[in-house]
Amino acid sequence: MGYYGDPMVKLIEALSSLPGIGAKTAQRLAFHIIHMPDENVENLSNAIIQAKKNIKYCSVCYTLTDKEKCDICSDPKRDEKTIMVVEDPRDMAAYERTKEYKGLYHILHGAISPMLGIGPKDIKIQELLERIQNTEVNEVILATNPNIEGEATAMYISKLLKPLGIKVTRIANGVPVGGDLEYVDEVTLSRALEGRREL
Amino acid sequence: MGYYGDPMVKLIEALSSLPGIGAKTAQRLAFHIIHMPDENVENLSNAIIQAKKNIKYCSVCYTLTDKEKCDICSDPKRDEKTIMVVEDPRDMAAYERTKEYKGLYHILHGAISPMLGIGPKDIKIQELLERIQNTEVNEVILATNPNIEGEATAMYISKLLKPLGIKVTRIANGVPVGGDLEYVDEVTLSRALEGRREL
Repeated sequence: MGYYGDPMVKLIEALSSLPGIGAKTAQRLAFHIIHMPDENVENLSNAIIQAKKNIKYCSVCYTLTDKEKCDICSDPKRDEKTIMVVEDPRDMAAYERTKEYKGLYHILHGAISPMLGIGPKDIKIQELLERIQNTEVNEVILATNPNIEGEATAMYISKLLKPLGIKVTRIANGVPVGGDLEYVDEVTLSRALEGRREL
Repeated sequence: MGYYGDPMVKLIEALSSLPGIGAKTAQRLAFHIIHMPDENVENLSNAIIQAKKNIKYCSVCYTLTDKEKCDICSDPKRDEKTIMVVEDPRDMAAYERTKEYKGLYHILHGAISPMLGIGPKDIKIQELLERIQNTEVNEVILATNPNIEGEATAMYISKLLKPLGIKVTRIANGVPVGGDLEYVDEVTLSRALEGRREL
């Protein structure tokens, strides 16, 4: 590593510390960076600092934003009475790409996981409760991941909200559209059968 | 992409412009970066700027360094009369890791490639000639890559240097140590046979 001068070694080390970037990739990126135009290098360096400095949580839904209230929460055309609860801003982005959902979101920033020592107080469940108590909400859609932690989190939230008389729903399990039944796991196949609808 | 605020979008875009970093990886890295401690973020950002600002070519061998003359060219223990010619600083680093070679290097920064429009004047061949004419050199080892471009470059340099009465050698082709003959290509096998040595 020490053959290209100290600033290069430091850059390779800093890049290697990123997730999924091994020593070889870090070296390749560092070589690319020092050959980029000055302007692009400054742009990259600034983008890192600016994102870290300006990105915070939306005060309403806790997604990432550079504003006090994110674009979705500020949009008067969205249905304020429907809240979809997701684990991560990326899950929200995935649902936004469908262009089907018109309600608001609530980002938990994780899921309950006794294995990882993550309890209900470590994710934004209390904030969800306060939000629901302070605004009029018709339906809470639980869109946590379809795995053990996500299911446990959905169950937990459901038990908290039902006594408040709010409609709580869970996204459906089933076979993925465009998938091949042959390659779908047994649990998903069973859930798809259970959830069958009359045509 | 536009669901996390503008500074986040800019960071994802800047990261996506790096080689081998697709949209998904850029997003994953950006999420990691905004959750890193302030200190690490500044460290990464600075490392980028500092490497770009301070890394230049060694005035002797053209490897990357932050000094006028790189550590290898400045090392009095190295054999100044032997020069290994490589395409890239990474090839030099690979030979340094063997800890076998004690001579100096010359980095071409590329190889002759009519396909890519890279001619002899586009790489550091003229600089190699000047270096050889100004210092006493016993042997030039051509360690360009064992592919079409590398071979063509080695042949070209060899023809330039031989009239000067300098010993010019080429690294050997053969089967990789630890490899399995079954998986070695035919050309390499032929070269290994041609290059056989008496034991």
